[in-house]
Amino acid sequence: MNGRSIIAGQYSVREGKAFYASNPASGTALPEPFFNASSEDLNEAMAAAAIAQHKQLPKDIRAALLRSIAEELELLGEELVTRAILESGLTKARLSGELLRTTGQLRLFADQVEEGSWLNAIIDTADLDRKPLPKPDIRRMLVPIGPVVVFAASNFPLAFSVAGGDTAAVLAAGCPVIVKAHAAHPGTSALAAEAIMQALVKTGVSGSFFSLLFDQGYEIGKMLVMHPETCAVTFTGSYQGGMALQKMAQQRKKPIPFFAEMGSVNPVFLLPQVLKNRHTQIAATYAGSITMGAGQFCTNPGLMIAIKSPELNAFIERLRIEIERIDSATMLSPGIYSNYKKRTTEILKEREVEVLAVSAALNTEAQCQALAMITTISGNEFLLNPLLQEEVFGPYSMLVVADNINQLSEIANVLEGQLTVTIMADQSELNEYSSLIDRLKNKTGRLILNGAPTGVEVCAAMQHGGPFPATNDSRFTSVGSTAVLRFCRPLAWQNWPDELLPDELKESNPLHIFRLVNNKWTKAS
Amino acid sequence: MNGRSIIAGQYSVREGKAFYASNPASGTALPEPFFNASSEDLNEAMAAAAIAQHKQLPKDIRAALLRSIAEELELLGEELVTRAILESGLTKARLSGELLRTTGQLRLFADQVEEGSWLNAIIDTADLDRKPLPKPDIRRMLVPIGPVVVFAASNFPLAFSVAGGDTAAVLAAGCPVIVKAHAAHPGTSALAAEAIMQALVKTGVSGSFFSLLFDQGYEIGKMLVMHPETCAVTFTGSYQGGMALQKMAQQRKKPIPFFAEMGSVNPVFLLPQVLKNRHTQIAATYAGSITMGAGQFCTNPGLMIAIKSPELNAFIERLRIEIERIDSATMLSPGIYSNYKKRTTEILKEREVEVLAVSAALNTEAQCQALAMITTISGNEFLLNPLLQEEVFGPYSMLVVADNINQLSEIANVLEGQLTVTIMADQSELNEYSSLIDRLKNKTGRLILNGAPTGVEVCAAMQHGGPFPATNDSRFTSVGSTAVLRFCRPLAWQNWPDELLPDELKESNPLHIFRLVNNKWTKAS
Repeated sequence: MNGRSIIAGQYSVREGKAFYASNPASGTALPEPFFNASSEDLNEAMAAAAIAQHKQLPKDIRAALLRSIAEELELLGEELVTRAILESGLTKARLSGELLRTTGQLRLFADQVEEGSWLNAIIDTADLDRKPLPKPDIRRMLVPIGPVVVFAASNFPLAFSVAGGDTAAVLAAGCPVIVKAHAAHPGTSALAAEAIMQALVKTGVSGSFFSLLFDQGYEIGKMLVMHPETCAVTFTGSYQGGMALQKMAQQRKKPIPFFAEMGSVNPVFLLPQVLKNRHTQIAATYAGSITMGAGQFCTNPGLMIAIKSPELNAFIERLRIEIERIDSATMLSPGIYSNYKKRTTEILKEREVEVLAVSAALNTEAQCQALAMITTISGNEFLLNPLLQEEVFGPYSMLVVADNINQLSEIANVLEGQLTVTIMADQSELNEYSSLIDRLKNKTGRLILNGAPTGVEVCAAMQHGGPFPATNDSRFTSVGSTAVLRFCRPLAWQNWPDELLPDELKESNPLHIFRLVNNKWTKAS
Repeated sequence: MNGRSIIAGQYSVREGKAFYASNPASGTALPEPFFNASSEDLNEAMAAAAIAQHKQLPKDIRAALLRSIAEELELLGEELVTRAILESGLTKARLSGELLRTTGQLRLFADQVEEGSWLNAIIDTADLDRKPLPKPDIRRMLVPIGPVVVFAASNFPLAFSVAGGDTAAVLAAGCPVIVKAHAAHPGTSALAAEAIMQALVKTGVSGSFFSLLFDQGYEIGKMLVMHPETCAVTFTGSYQGGMALQKMAQQRKKPIPFFAEMGSVNPVFLLPQVLKNRHTQIAATYAGSITMGAGQFCTNPGLMIAIKSPELNAFIERLRIEIERIDSATMLSPGIYSNYKKRTTEILKEREVEVLAVSAALNTEAQCQALAMITTISGNEFLLNPLLQEEVFGPYSMLVVADNINQLSEIANVLEGQLTVTIMADQSELNEYSSLIDRLKNKTGRLILNGAPTGVEVCAAMQHGGPFPATNDSRFTSVGSTAVLRFCRPLAWQNWPDELLPDELKESNPLHIFRLVNNKWTKAS
């Protein structure tokens, strides 16, 4: 395993200060050294990317590259999963699933690149006889925005890291990518980068389309955001981290799109009738959803809201039993673990917050062991205390007990923006609560009925991005195939001869893609 | 004519400090008073808009509203054009054409609303048998982003003001609009607002979807950008104005999309062979393009670049003759006129800048009379002086004379982001200059061959927005039907029964729109 940064598809010749990964479960350091990148590494990576942006990657090459990365990841398979387990403390089942998700999303983007309608190719043909002025021929499509910086996330060491969704979307858009590796899983990052480098060679794509920079500190990240050649930045992580980078991006002379997915508390509204009918099943579903992956998901259901009733009491009793029998789980890093302990301790000091349930089985043989916790509070008190809306990253959720339907609506009104809002309801009560549901649409990017917010499907219709502070820009998604739209801009050609237009815009439609021609969607020429 | 602000479709009961429009050509004030809005007016307008955003306007109502506004503007017709002439100094021919453009773009948006593919409706159906986990049903489409603040532009008193392209796009998206009237044409604004109010009544749309605020100063504008209920802001104007508003928007706790179209110098590359063949015709075209509307267009060709040659000398001679015979023209306001005088005086003090031509006929009977001016400079000196890239708003252009093709490329490399780049070329030289053309794609939103950048076609394929500093966000356009995308965000519905989904996402496709269903574009259900 090579612990150096990668500049334009080649390992750096330099070695900065060494750092080591650690195993959160054992608390021990892993032996392989990784080396902080230098500003020279960064400048070389950005210079190569700036040149690469002028190379237009045809759609079949982009698709081949994405599929080749998926194949190379599969060839690594066991080695990659084993390293990710060591560095993240996540289970083998979870990481094997995550590898499938990672290769699946690479192939989804490849399919989309070939399908072509996402380019939004639009053609308005000339009308030279139009009065008072002739109408020109104008043809427009999405083009790559330029070099994109991807900050790898810690909580998905495969699916939202070096060869994860953001990288796949950037390459699908045709942009060069510069990944800032997450320092919590450098070995997993180095292996995934090997897969990308292999795929670049196999598909004949210039190495300049891929760089990977290691840094245990913040310097390289700051420089990447501020670099004049950077054309977009994407980040998945905490509210604090996202806002700090956004503030930095705002200092730039040239503004760039900056995407921060900062998580949310993903409120779940438990309506009365469904609790009456199915409280046992819902308690089991939610105990699982809250504790899955030690609760380290941006879609973790951190807030449940219900009206007080005997059925709610039965649900609470059931949830307590479920939570108490869930074992402690290893968190991603000592930092995340200590933050979880700190936040759960703090929240218990807030007025009227009470513990409803804590998981009973602490694994004393491992480190970074999070115990699941459910707290509760009255609707009145929740409405008075905005701090209770802040995310607690880990296997935690708060149940808010409202006095009545009016208070439930008041709570809906004060909620901040969310990635998801879930409504658990019996079919019979959907009409009664329709105005509540309408209000909640403005609070979220995804509205779920009778499900759990965890388990984000990677597909074209997915929206993983919601009103602030869930993300800083609700117009885009970081999961699903429309995530590619973050890295494009439209370009219009006026009065160009057919042979000089990109294939996507040529009169005969040689790529056979859907286009809007004179205001009609068609595959015809 | 009622000079009060309009709050949610009704005239305000308050009268703030009065101000008056002035006729830039005569220098005299017009008699009707207009009243600065107060913070109460603004808060009431925003509160109404915040409630209106929960009302979903079906697509046929949106289309009817847009068409009705167009009809009401046509009914005003002569009165509106006459008032606009008085307030802007623009000609009757220009403003009659602009009214046609305004009604045309309202109807273009109406057609698009009905066509429906722009909503990007995407459906991924459930697969309950999928292993290891069942696949949920997810359906996604664009929904209105919420109340949008539109800053009216001064240079298009009809097409980019109260009932102009931004307002049309906001209403097409289904959002409430709050227009900050431009203080240079308040009477034109009041008349256009009457048309919108009539249309709201006739189509039964809540008045809360439209407010108009007058203010001769900056206070109301600042408050609109900072208001917590504001969900997006759009601005067309100067670089200084756009950046000041952007800075303000960045102070908000909740970030919002902010769109500033700040103009550019719209470089025109005059290649050697085309000058040889057609210098007389090109000189006539460009003399017209530079001076049209007193050069007060964001697409005014403020920079021409050519290689020195006898043909270039012939072009210069011809351009001089054309410019000298163009009369002076009234600028939009004394402020814009004095700024034009200041900027043209300043630029002549820059090293090696020389005057090539000035229009000879000054109309001494009118005020605010701009004389067209062409300056010239060597390629060497242009490369050394970035100030020469700054826009001079008015009938001005600079010709840069490069030594050779290499210097032409160097100039292309140092250009800042542009709304348009134009290449004037003979068919025979397009291949020779292909790498220059490739470079220029990264600098612009629209790439024109053998045309003029002025005359922005309003159609689906138009891109009017380019890399910074032409706009602050090259991913969007402010002209053409995709301008609607500025005011939407995606929302996904997961596992909802058909009857509770919006019509656009229902299984049977009752609106018969194009949708991406399981990764295939189709009108089928």
